[in-house]
Amino acid sequence: MTFRELWDQIAPIGLSAATGGYLRYAWTEPELALRDWFRSQCRERELTMEEDGNGNLFAWWNPSDEPGVLTGSHFDSVPHGGAYDGPLGIVSALLAVDALRDRGFRPARPIGIAAFAEEEGSRFGLACLGSRLLCGAVEAETAAALRDRDGVTLGSAMGVVPAGARKEVLTRIGSYVELHVEQGRGLAESGRPVGVASAIWPHGRWRLDFTGEANHAGTTLMADRHDPMLTFAYTVLAANKEARLRGAHATIGRIAVEPNATNAIPARVSAWLDARAAAASVVEDLVAAVHGRAVERSHRDGTQVSLTPESVSAETTFDGELRDRIARLLDDAPILPTGAGHDAGVLSAHVPTAMLFVRNPTGVSHSPAEYASDADCEAGVTALADVLAELAS
Amino acid sequence: MTFRELWDQIAPIGLSAATGGYLRYAWTEPELALRDWFRSQCRERELTMEEDGNGNLFAWWNPSDEPGVLTGSHFDSVPHGGAYDGPLGIVSALLAVDALRDRGFRPARPIGIAAFAEEEGSRFGLACLGSRLLCGAVEAETAAALRDRDGVTLGSAMGVVPAGARKEVLTRIGSYVELHVEQGRGLAESGRPVGVASAIWPHGRWRLDFTGEANHAGTTLMADRHDPMLTFAYTVLAANKEARLRGAHATIGRIAVEPNATNAIPARVSAWLDARAAAASVVEDLVAAVHGRAVERSHRDGTQVSLTPESVSAETTFDGELRDRIARLLDDAPILPTGAGHDAGVLSAHVPTAMLFVRNPTGVSHSPAEYASDADCEAGVTALADVLAELAS
Repeated sequence: MTFRELWDQIAPIGLSAATGGYLRYAWTEPELALRDWFRSQCRERELTMEEDGNGNLFAWWNPSDEPGVLTGSHFDSVPHGGAYDGPLGIVSALLAVDALRDRGFRPARPIGIAAFAEEEGSRFGLACLGSRLLCGAVEAETAAALRDRDGVTLGSAMGVVPAGARKEVLTRIGSYVELHVEQGRGLAESGRPVGVASAIWPHGRWRLDFTGEANHAGTTLMADRHDPMLTFAYTVLAANKEARLRGAHATIGRIAVEPNATNAIPARVSAWLDARAAAASVVEDLVAAVHGRAVERSHRDGTQVSLTPESVSAETTFDGELRDRIARLLDDAPILPTGAGHDAGVLSAHVPTAMLFVRNPTGVSHSPAEYASDADCEAGVTALADVLAELAS
Repeated sequence: MTFRELWDQIAPIGLSAATGGYLRYAWTEPELALRDWFRSQCRERELTMEEDGNGNLFAWWNPSDEPGVLTGSHFDSVPHGGAYDGPLGIVSALLAVDALRDRGFRPARPIGIAAFAEEEGSRFGLACLGSRLLCGAVEAETAAALRDRDGVTLGSAMGVVPAGARKEVLTRIGSYVELHVEQGRGLAESGRPVGVASAIWPHGRWRLDFTGEANHAGTTLMADRHDPMLTFAYTVLAANKEARLRGAHATIGRIAVEPNATNAIPARVSAWLDARAAAASVVEDLVAAVHGRAVERSHRDGTQVSLTPESVSAETTFDGELRDRIARLLDDAPILPTGAGHDAGVLSAHVPTAMLFVRNPTGVSHSPAEYASDADCEAGVTALADVLAELAS
């Protein structure tokens, strides 16, 4: 089966005709349909399915007591996200298994394919939720109480309280290799279809709550206002400036306004700050600077501002030996850092972990413009098969 | 019946326990319940109900072919709005009819109570929608196609295409007097419970659409971004500054972000600018200045911005003779301008129109903090009864 043939099977699931982007939130109908599709693909390949009670699926070829080589990724998307971020890693894994069988390869240890849950954190706000639960990086009770934008808890979306840390599942993972579309133009510039990750930048999400006084937009004198939208707007510009000064990344892409009416000064603006940099100290300093400037401005506006960390991840440096072994295997593939978080980052604290990137000529990600050519995706499958063969021999 | 007794009957309808504000959008369950309550109150008082096919209700005492004196207001609220804006005018009208009957007053011409639909424009975006339809200030087909935030059209919310201009209904209105909670502190400062309106400031709503390029918040270099949130934020601060420079009011209180995800640079930010000033030329100049600064900034951000007027109202000067007659009748009640739009402003283009304001010690409006004391509301009822007696004698 070609990459295109398998890829086309999932292309319509969760596609928004209006934007050309995907709405595949964890535990919603499209994401559950993708998991069912995954289960049936694994059945066809006679892989042994294991569920960890945290929403994560593992399909094993040649399961045994020995730790295996795990690959895979996630199905969930950001709102109106691209097609490749996540699903490419799972589809490529299925095709890599096919390729190894075509080659007559017989694994000396288990090879597994993972579909992790809620990697983007688009529904419950905590990125890499499935892998964090598995590894005990978030408590099951804490996670169960997380709410989506409609107030639905994770527990009720799953139907059960998640199982939390599963040591017996983790010990079956000897190493993890996640294939992912590149979220930048590093490979496009190097002229190579496949690369290897060096590290994930430290990053995190902080919620800024700006509160003021709701009032009538027509009748309230400008001097009498306590308008949190002003403090928010100032903070957006300050975050941009402070990030540029530090060579870091700061984004405010999600906000919630109350009451969000044309003729009412808002009572509250909540905004989520996404901050990343090459060093954790730079991220900390950046967030402190943004918060400081927000507080400063709030005095002028007669508003209040509070800062709440929602998820903060330290730097992840992938296993150096594994990284170099893979890069050599792939004809000295380029080694690239990334600003994006991944389940591989969570797992890397527990098992030797690596990532493969597939060239994305637009460099765009989390958007319908995210792209990889079929030829590059096929090259990714071949590279992944080579890596699995190497590690499972 | 005291003001409090009647007021308490509607107090729970559409109340949000979370904010203490009201969610009474036009043609939703709470607003329909309020209309049913109004119908039953009018039946008890043996008033003759007339519906105009635009969602507006008229209940007449002593109907005849002669033009009558109309009073009333609206039930719908802004999101999480206060209790008084709208309903106070209708409840006071019912109690004023009771007071006139207690006095043994017999109207020489009809006295009517109106409940207008969608005055706030909180659901379909066009303020004073019901009175505009009645007066032909918006076409029925245009209005029917308006959509709420969930994409529901006005036509389908009403179940029919609205009737539009109804000359035969309008000709039955000889004059209109709307009682409303004050949306400022003019009366609180004057020490009087009731005042009379002089004029409504010219005002309007403009939609600003900022578009850029959705991309990954972690991996996209700051220099490579086309982030419409930055252009939006700059525009919020510019609107505030330009309004202050002109002694005008500018508010951006409603926004919509796509995809509105923490880890995605937005593709689009839509924002609604509410602008008001004492003169129409100042409003025009203010909106042009805000738009100009938004466009200027968009060049720096590599984004686009467009401006769409959604509803623009010229200045309303209420009938001078009627205003002075009412002020004299009410012991030289204070005469105050207002920055807020009202159905009275729409009707004033067709019939002599006046407004009574009831003191609001907080000065706050469109918020749960909006307030009038029971004693002041009773004073408002007495004043309204006096005015109706004067005009219907």
